[in-house]
Formats: sequence, structure tokens, C-alpha cells
Amino acid sequence: MTRIPLGAGPEFDRIRAIAEALGESAGTLGDDCASVPDAEGTLVLSTDASIENVHFRRDWMTAEEVGWRAAAAALSDLAAQGATPVGLLAAVALPREAPVEDSTGIMRGIGRAAADSGAAVLGGDLSAAGEWMITVTVVGRAVRPVSRRGASPGDGLWVTGALGAARAALDAWRAGREPAPGAREAFAHPRPRIAAGRWLGEHGARAMLDLSDGLAADAGHLAAASGCRAEIDLDSVPTAGDAVPAAIAAGIEPPLYAAAGGEDYELLAALPAAFGEADQRRFEQASGLAITRVGRMARGEGTRFTLRGERVTLAGFDHFR
Amino acid sequence: MTRIPLGAGPEFDRIRAIAEALGESAGTLGDDCASVPDAEGTLVLSTDASIENVHFRRDWMTAEEVGWRAAAAALSDLAAQGATPVGLLAAVALPREAPVEDSTGIMRGIGRAAADSGAAVLGGDLSAAGEWMITVTVVGRAVRPVSRRGASPGDGLWVTGALGAARAALDAWRAGREPAPGAREAFAHPRPRIAAGRWLGEHGARAMLDLSDGLAADAGHLAAASGCRAEIDLDSVPTAGDAVPAAIAAGIEPPLYAAAGGEDYELLAALPAAFGEADQRRFEQASGLAITRVGRMARGEGTRFTLRGERVTLAGFDHFR
Repeated sequence: MTRIPLGAGPEFDRIRAIAEALGESAGTLGDDCASVPDAEGTLVLSTDASIENVHFRRDWMTAEEVGWRAAAAALSDLAAQGATPVGLLAAVALPREAPVEDSTGIMRGIGRAAADSGAAVLGGDLSAAGEWMITVTVVGRAVRPVSRRGASPGDGLWVTGALGAARAALDAWRAGREPAPGAREAFAHPRPRIAAGRWLGEHGARAMLDLSDGLAADAGHLAAASGCRAEIDLDSVPTAGDAVPAAIAAGIEPPLYAAAGGEDYELLAALPAAFGEADQRRFEQASGLAITRVGRMARGEGTRFTLRGERVTLAGFDHFR
Repeated sequence: MTRIPLGAGPEFDRIRAIAEALGESAGTLGDDCASVPDAEGTLVLSTDASIENVHFRRDWMTAEEVGWRAAAAALSDLAAQGATPVGLLAAVALPREAPVEDSTGIMRGIGRAAADSGAAVLGGDLSAAGEWMITVTVVGRAVRPVSRRGASPGDGLWVTGALGAARAALDAWRAGREPAPGAREAFAHPRPRIAAGRWLGEHGARAMLDLSDGLAADAGHLAAASGCRAEIDLDSVPTAGDAVPAAIAAGIEPPLYAAAGGEDYELLAALPAAFGEADQRRFEQASGLAITRVGRMARGEGTRFTLRGERVTLAGFDHFR
């Protein structure tokens, strides 16, 4: 049995307790995906639940958007492994009195997100529940799956795309306002970084994960799994245009706002120190996405964040907080 | 895209609407498992949700029993395909205030059920929810997966084990009584019929499913998927000893009680007409389980039940009823 060192936080405390309870029947817990080697390479699997009032509120999104987002969040785990999606299974639970349009809307969103990533809807399960719950399990293949464990001191830390827009949408909804269209789109229609993840996996990525808990927390997970320290230069964090007004309104410096927000589903990759500007351009041409160096791995443990050369403290998002 | 003809009932109406909404992005819907061919044979996958107050009540079982049952219900879908389990993924959602013992108990039960079927716990997801929800996705392999579609007129219909004990437990709990120990065990610790399913798959089973909705309803599903009629002789239905007093107390003839009860997780198999007593003995020696002929497939559609030669009507269990 392989145990992955886990970061701090109450969710990880629960996972640690679970790994102990499971003992020898546990496989590799703590990574985004499970790997099953087979004759054609490695089968990569991940399961991800989206639950009403925890991951979303129904008055924020249409049923189709809820479905898209649930599937995209799961497919994003395959992206982080550098895997190619094969298909997904969806367990959908809704209140008994829900109109049939709710279940068809959710499944239409799941189907569209799957098709957008080249995955088939392989099967599912439909049942009653007190609240909306969608659990999506994804299956993919990778020649060389990238885990969150392989980073070494000296590696550069890179982020795809721009961060913070999904947080801007969440903050607006929580304050009772409608988010800006770009922020809303970032939250309701995240696009799993499949091609980007595959390219990075094929071009030397040592460790990778998708940013669901926010850069601050996820860098800590990558550091803990890899047994070293993540040093993030917050001045270089790519902040989404839609996040800037929200950050200013909240009185938070935009890169701090972006680094502490979750749900972006961009990729965080540890790449060899030699990965430079020419590689960056090749990545951007291949994937159509920007990639930005936001820090490096160093000896030690945990995370260190600096803004204009000064140490700062940041917290991430924890579902059990 | 392959569409499997579906039986009657509101749950299937929803699945039909979903298949329409999915259109071409849908894979094979309507069977217990999805199949992905690969170099080593066929990968078989299934996902199954267990939800508080729908599939169980927390005051009925310990957390470990809830976990066992959730995993066993999903593994049972692999048994019905004649597949060998590889592993499972578990998405567990609990109220934020739940003690850590609840999540470790659930995962211990999942781990024990997995180990009992030769499966590894490959990964999972943990989050908050208003009520307990456990979604288990199982992965297995089969040389020749058995679907519910392959039955033909003339095939015999056979059932493993004995039926009705899980219903007896449910009826007792619903009436506010503690079930008899054997009935309680049948509900809380179902054992997926992995070896039995594999043996039947290797010995000519044309169609198979696991009895979760009850023989009456599940025979209808097999008939609809196979495009013929299931004829069940209720006098021959093997009734669990623990179901008999419950049936008598409910004023229902024991085989009718057993045939209309769900959650047994025994297998219903369509076997060639030539499958006879010698095969039956070989099966029982190989699996340690009884197998009983309860009817046959015929031309036509739907189900026909007879008791002492008279036609009777039976209904099954539907989560959206």
C-alpha cells in the first residue's frame, strides 16, 4: 500500500483517519486519481461529488450548468494526471418531487462537458435524495500518469490560465448580487485543461494538480505529497480580469485574492528548472492557454508566500471548515 | 450508441428522458454496468449511490454496516456481469458536524466489503452534505461480460440463494421493531455473488442481473432488455427462512413476499434450456450457494406470474415511486 503524505487541515485529518481505518485494504489514497496498470498503459480513475449547498446553490445556476460543472470538476482530475479521458459514470440524486427537466438538464450538462473533453457517458445511477447530489466518476488513460508526488527542490512552479474569477462569482452570489458575466462563466462552465495537462505530462511535468482548493492550499498539498516546500511569489500570480474589481471591492490585493480563491480548475505544475521561455511559448501554441511561473520548490516543508519580497500568510478552502 | 430497451416505471421514464437529452454523447445506458474493451478483455464499470432515508436509515445500522452495504450493492453489479472485481472508488458525504468515527466507520465497512470481494479501495472523495450519501464506483474485468439483454425464449430462469430476508428486515424496522438476526444480517451485510456470477458467466449464462428491485420487477427488466417475456412460477421461488414468519405476519404467502421484496442481491440468470440438475450440482459445489429454477423466458413481453397454476399480479420496488 502506498501512502501519500497529506497536507494540513480538517479534511486531510479525516482522510488520515480513514486511511488508518482501511489499513491494508486501501490502495493509493490522497492523490486526485487512482491508477490501475493494464496492457495498454495505465488506467486512471477519479470520483468527485457535487452537492447542493456545499459545492453550489441551485439559485446560482441552471440544472444544465450544475451538470456541466460536476462533470468538469471530475474531468479536471484527469487533466492533472496528463490523462486522456475515456468516459464517465454519473450518479444523480434529486428530491422525489423534482420535475423531470431537472434530471434531463443535469444529464445534458454532464453529456456536453463529457463531449467537450472527448469522453463518453458510460453509465449512471438515478435515485431520490433530500438535496441535489451528483457524483461523477471519470476514467482515462495515461502513458505516464503524473501524480502530485514527484516535485523536487529546484523545480519551477507554473500555473495555467488566470485565477480568481470563480471566487469573484462566489463572492457576488454570497453577497446577493449577480456576478459579472465572465466570473459567472468561470464558475458555471469551467473547462478541464485536458490538452494542457497532456502536453505538460509529455514535456517533463514532475508533479501536477488541478486548482480546486485555491493556489495557496493546493501548493501546500503538492509540497506535502512531494516532501518539499512550495515557495510562491504572489506578485507573479496571473489574476483573471474578472477577479480584479471583486478583489478591490473586497479590499484585498488582486494576486492575494486570486491565490486564495478556489474552483479555478487551472493546473499547477512542477516543471524542471530548465523549463523556460521557449517551452512556455510552445505550450501556449499547443494549448491556446497561457502558462505563468509563480514560484519554485525548495528544501523544507509547507508553503512560503511572498508579496513584494515580504512574507505573507494565506489560507485556502476546506470543505470541512 | 446502443440503447437498451427499458422496463416500465417512473425511474425508467426518467432514464428514457435522460437518454434523449444526452443524444449521441450517451454510451450504453440502461444496463447495470458500462463496458470498455481493452487489450486484456473488457473493463466493466458501475456506479451506485446509497442515500440516507432513501436506501437506509441511520438508526437501523452502524456506520460500518452502511459502508459495507453501499460497497456490496455496487460490487453486486459486477457479479451480475460475471466480472472479477479490480477495485472501487468511494465518494462519501456527511454532515459537517458528523464525528470522525462516522467517516472512518463507513470507510472501514467499504474496505471490508471490498476485501471480501477481492477488490482494492482505489480512491475516493470526502465532502460535506446535509445527509449521508455514499456513492461507490466499481471496476472489474470480464472475459465475456454478461448483460441483461441476451435472454431468448426457451431459456430457463434461475435464482441463486434464497429471497425475502432483506424485506423482512425492512418491514420490521418500518414497523418500529428490531428485525430477526438473520434478516438484519441479510440487509446489513449482503455478500455480492462474485464467484457465482463468474461461474454462471463461464457456463453459458445468456443474461443476468442482481436482484435489487425484487424478483418481480427485475424479471421485468431482464425481459424488456431481452425483448421477450419472463414467466415465473412463484411456487418454486426459494424463500429465505427469515422471510417466512414476516410473510405470515404480513398476511402474504411467503413466495409472493419473497418475489416482491428488494435488496436481496442474489443473481437472476437466464440459462440455456439444457442447464439441468447436473449443472445445478456443479454450480452449488463451486459456489457454495443454492440455485433454483423459478421460470422460463417465452415469446412476448413483460412478466407473467403464476401461483398454483393461477395468474397473479406482483409489483416491485421503484426508488421514484
